[in-house]
Amino acid sequence: MNTIVFALPGNEDLAGKLATSLKADIGELTIRHFPDGETYIRIHSDVKEKRVIMVCSLNNPDEKLLSLFFLSQAAKEQGADCTCLVAPYLAYMRQDKQFNTGEGVTSTYFARFISNFADTLITIDPHLHRRNSMSEIYTVPCKVLHAAGLISAWIRNNIEKPVLIGPDSESEQWVEVVAKNAGAPFIVLEKIRRGDREVEVAVPQVERYREYSPVLVDDIISTAHTMIETVGHLKRAGMKPPVCIGIHGIFAGNSFQELQEAGVATIVTTNTIGHPTNKVEIADLIASAF
Amino acid sequence: MNTIVFALPGNEDLAGKLATSLKADIGELTIRHFPDGETYIRIHSDVKEKRVIMVCSLNNPDEKLLSLFFLSQAAKEQGADCTCLVAPYLAYMRQDKQFNTGEGVTSTYFARFISNFADTLITIDPHLHRRNSMSEIYTVPCKVLHAAGLISAWIRNNIEKPVLIGPDSESEQWVEVVAKNAGAPFIVLEKIRRGDREVEVAVPQVERYREYSPVLVDDIISTAHTMIETVGHLKRAGMKPPVCIGIHGIFAGNSFQELQEAGVATIVTTNTIGHPTNKVEIADLIASAF
Repeated sequence: MNTIVFALPGNEDLAGKLATSLKADIGELTIRHFPDGETYIRIHSDVKEKRVIMVCSLNNPDEKLLSLFFLSQAAKEQGADCTCLVAPYLAYMRQDKQFNTGEGVTSTYFARFISNFADTLITIDPHLHRRNSMSEIYTVPCKVLHAAGLISAWIRNNIEKPVLIGPDSESEQWVEVVAKNAGAPFIVLEKIRRGDREVEVAVPQVERYREYSPVLVDDIISTAHTMIETVGHLKRAGMKPPVCIGIHGIFAGNSFQELQEAGVATIVTTNTIGHPTNKVEIADLIASAF
Repeated sequence: MNTIVFALPGNEDLAGKLATSLKADIGELTIRHFPDGETYIRIHSDVKEKRVIMVCSLNNPDEKLLSLFFLSQAAKEQGADCTCLVAPYLAYMRQDKQFNTGEGVTSTYFARFISNFADTLITIDPHLHRRNSMSEIYTVPCKVLHAAGLISAWIRNNIEKPVLIGPDSESEQWVEVVAKNAGAPFIVLEKIRRGDREVEVAVPQVERYREYSPVLVDDIISTAHTMIETVGHLKRAGMKPPVCIGIHGIFAGNSFQELQEAGVATIVTTNTIGHPTNKVEIADLIASAF
């Protein structure tokens, strides 16, 4: 089956690389807005009997959904065999239960909406928290890819004497894997209770790692609050400024600047979301799913 | 069946009036955005076994759709009998065919999306252009209401010596009805060709109506281009500054200021879309649909 790759606005770079990697055509598409805010869409390429790949990272999801829905509908109306959504970053994974009465479980609704128009979904490290698998909420086939290997390789190739840092015991398993593949040691910060409310965070074996480059890894950097806090713990323990790595760099509001100013060596992300910190390329990883 | 009315953000005034008119409860709802742009929704009122009315005018539709979809899903999950979308202004009625190859027929797709989550739809004067009825695109029951009667009444009560103006022959039927119900005369502008490209617009019987207040009526004021042009024709013919009435006042970009500066007596809209020009109340009209 012939494949044609379309970039939703802002995803042109990744879509181009993916098309090259897949030896597929890149589709030509116009999406613009009328003065009244409505969206206009026109597919200039022939999609008949083709597999249509729609590349659209879903940071700031609300404003993107209707365009994506329109593209899928238009492609099918124009004879496409199927539409596949490549969303390197997938939104709405956090509200996965009712924390308070009356709350909408948006991760379920969002999945319902996507499953209603896309025939398949490919994504990288979705924030599966209380869910075991995407099939609990998505009714279409989902392929979940993992960037951990690419991140380990980046650390191995770019950081001298790295030590991976797990901000808490929850992160231990994940940090251990990345560390192992990077050929690096890891430490997990320890919370020590001092009375009812006071919690002190300690860096174990801190003397041993003073000359190492601490490396923080998280799946999503959104407000960066957790990371900034951890940077503070390392600083107070007298460690070097850390390298901060996020798979998905959302950088909500002013968080990019705030993280920079917290005293970090450098900030690194994959290009699931386009950002100046992108250093880990995920196009070939996505291509491997096809 | 008990009815409960929810206002999507910006529709509180109309929803309140509608609830009063229907003697229904007004529902309490939180919709807010997380720093990463995702929407949080919580229904504070009990919706179990109730008819849920969601009031949301669909100007700038793209950013509103997901919240609306989430509200409908959450309400049903929490036991609502059905959800009814009251969209006084309905979007995406214009792209109702492919004008060029490859274009998405968004009016169809949009209708599909709405029909997928709302059980019924109530709207006022949708821009049915090349379509005869809403059921050509909407698969859920639609109730279409008309504001012409309210506009005629407003003209009758507020304008001395009005003369309705039809900008072209297409508008004749519609202007005739509004004029008749307002107890006012009407004139339709005439296009006179002067050679291949030049078209002059004439105001028939202009001498007779010099002392009248010209009244322009259109369904949607979006860019206001058509209305501004017509204002110019009347001005050049030596008529008084006209009263400009729109059912739906979208006022895209700078158009409100541009229309004011074109030399109008006043600008009047219904409150299908909240705007300082709102003078015609549509809450009771909507209530009449229930």
